[in-house]
Amino acid sequence: MKTRVSNFGPGPATLPLEVLEQTAEDIINFQGSGIGLMEISHRSPEFQGIADEAESLLRELLQIPDNYRVLFLQGGASSQFFMIPMNLLADNGKATYLNTGTWAKKAIKEAQLFGDIDVAYSSEEQSFNRVPSDGEYSIKDDSEYLYFVSNNTIYGTQFATFPKTDTTLICDMSSDILSRPIDVSKFGLIFAGAQKNLGPAGVTIVIVRDDLVERGPETIPTMLRYKTHADKGSMFNTPPCVAISVVCRVLQWVKNMGGLEVIQKRNEEKAAVIYRIIDSGDYYRGHAERDSRSQMNISFNLPTPELEKKFIEEAAAIGLKGLKGHRSIGGCRASIYNAFELSGAEQLASFMEQFAANNPAS
Amino acid sequence: MKTRVSNFGPGPATLPLEVLEQTAEDIINFQGSGIGLMEISHRSPEFQGIADEAESLLRELLQIPDNYRVLFLQGGASSQFFMIPMNLLADNGKATYLNTGTWAKKAIKEAQLFGDIDVAYSSEEQSFNRVPSDGEYSIKDDSEYLYFVSNNTIYGTQFATFPKTDTTLICDMSSDILSRPIDVSKFGLIFAGAQKNLGPAGVTIVIVRDDLVERGPETIPTMLRYKTHADKGSMFNTPPCVAISVVCRVLQWVKNMGGLEVIQKRNEEKAAVIYRIIDSGDYYRGHAERDSRSQMNISFNLPTPELEKKFIEEAAAIGLKGLKGHRSIGGCRASIYNAFELSGAEQLASFMEQFAANNPAS
Repeated sequence: MKTRVSNFGPGPATLPLEVLEQTAEDIINFQGSGIGLMEISHRSPEFQGIADEAESLLRELLQIPDNYRVLFLQGGASSQFFMIPMNLLADNGKATYLNTGTWAKKAIKEAQLFGDIDVAYSSEEQSFNRVPSDGEYSIKDDSEYLYFVSNNTIYGTQFATFPKTDTTLICDMSSDILSRPIDVSKFGLIFAGAQKNLGPAGVTIVIVRDDLVERGPETIPTMLRYKTHADKGSMFNTPPCVAISVVCRVLQWVKNMGGLEVIQKRNEEKAAVIYRIIDSGDYYRGHAERDSRSQMNISFNLPTPELEKKFIEEAAAIGLKGLKGHRSIGGCRASIYNAFELSGAEQLASFMEQFAANNPAS
Repeated sequence: MKTRVSNFGPGPATLPLEVLEQTAEDIINFQGSGIGLMEISHRSPEFQGIADEAESLLRELLQIPDNYRVLFLQGGASSQFFMIPMNLLADNGKATYLNTGTWAKKAIKEAQLFGDIDVAYSSEEQSFNRVPSDGEYSIKDDSEYLYFVSNNTIYGTQFATFPKTDTTLICDMSSDILSRPIDVSKFGLIFAGAQKNLGPAGVTIVIVRDDLVERGPETIPTMLRYKTHADKGSMFNTPPCVAISVVCRVLQWVKNMGGLEVIQKRNEEKAAVIYRIIDSGDYYRGHAERDSRSQMNISFNLPTPELEKKFIEEAAAIGLKGLKGHRSIGGCRASIYNAFELSGAEQLASFMEQFAANNPAS
């Protein structure tokens, strides 16, 4: 297949074509330096310029207050699962977690190595088909923070609004950061692996309030303290330069698109096109409860596993790729992150209608 | 500047142009999938094929025995500084370290958080201008391992032969892996950040013997245990796909060049061209003692700091870039890793001769 397909993959995921084209040029000759992006010193003015621009664009788009630091780290979101409690739960501190899916559960497992963890809510018995609203759980007074996952990629659920509490909020926004405006000042720490809305796998963004930066004890490894990276502008060691450069290009694209309000509207439109088909009959069944539906990942089932298999194969044959659901729940999933085009969502919707007509439930 | 320059940078460093060109293509459309390298699922057959090929080429080129695992990790070589003692020094075990430079010293600092560390040798008082030979230090019987850095990027020193001992050898080969044939079976663990001889920053190769893989206790975070990554083929979480793909392309290039013996000969030739100028008079002074000289990084001084500044500027003006020494010792440094061309070394040698003639010491 030679031409660009519609990539519904859950991450790594589709990126704006103009970002790919610019990066392909950068890799041969970065900023006219005569040196490629993968070869140039991270301390060169050319690369430092891109790193600075990435931070400043992120601050602008998310309106990040001055008392927050922006870090570009390695190790994936999975490394934040332990860095957060390692830095913030010294002396076996307490924290509250909401168990809304696989990634929340993995974070809970790591946190239990460091502190006294209260799992105040879990939708595990309902196959994680919903996220809680404020009244459904309580947070103990001595909790250092409330940890939650804003969007659950596998199950297609998302917090439409964030928990209202005086407890410090910590949020894994890996799969919906930059998909809508947020009020950063309500959070103590936000993190996101890049490979959905931000760029390629290999860099994780951490937005962390100054007072939390200072909390990591000196007894933990230097590389695992937020303070180490904050003090050195994320260049304590050699950063993943390619990934950071691509994040910068993606942020330029978001800004050129008109910023987060425009992006949010576009995301709502794309999701609505697909949810409309799911809601139009009982052939397709959405996994998430309606109030918990994600604008980023739409997980759904067909009448039988055989029909799901056929659906995924026929879709791929016409260039609609990556629709297989996560192995833990099966079925189908359409991931439609920021860079995914409305035309691709419309193409999927048409295909869904045709497929249902051509393949009756029996 | 539009054309490609000679990049003497210490890392990230020059890569083969054909690897850059292939990667630029991959980023737009990977393996004809219609999806770019940064966008494709790490679990797709296309990417899995590249990851498998990277491992199998590394095994072939380094003749890695079957009882060793090859891991592709994030976090830089700096993360190995703590992962090694965290996994291998449970219960405050003992280990011996050789302090031959900044990176060894940083590794010692992290190891001291976990175990009883014996620094059996240090050249710090001589500005790290040499590495020891076997008789110059002793290893205590109860040492779990001997840790050393095979090539010291900043100071331009390198172990010409490796320590002969029954103690498990652990080696940071970040700046000379693949520069010469080695006998992996003599080591317990070898690691290397990619950004010198292997590819871009963002991935670290760890070659580790089976029995050591098992050693990490279950009380450390999942992501920090070697076993986690070994059990999942380095795909416990989303790997840095671009960096791994580039490593694969670099390994293909090394193989096409004729393998490590050819590469070693080429490296010796390049280094000899520059050392010959240093040794031809007293205008240039090599930092390293002769027996400890590196084939990868040549650190040297001119008669005065003013002449060094002029030298670096004039060299850059004719396309010889990245010759500034590390801020910790000043002076000049020519890094000539695997992908650096002989013609670039010859160009530098000519320039050195001319510059000395035109700028007498006074």
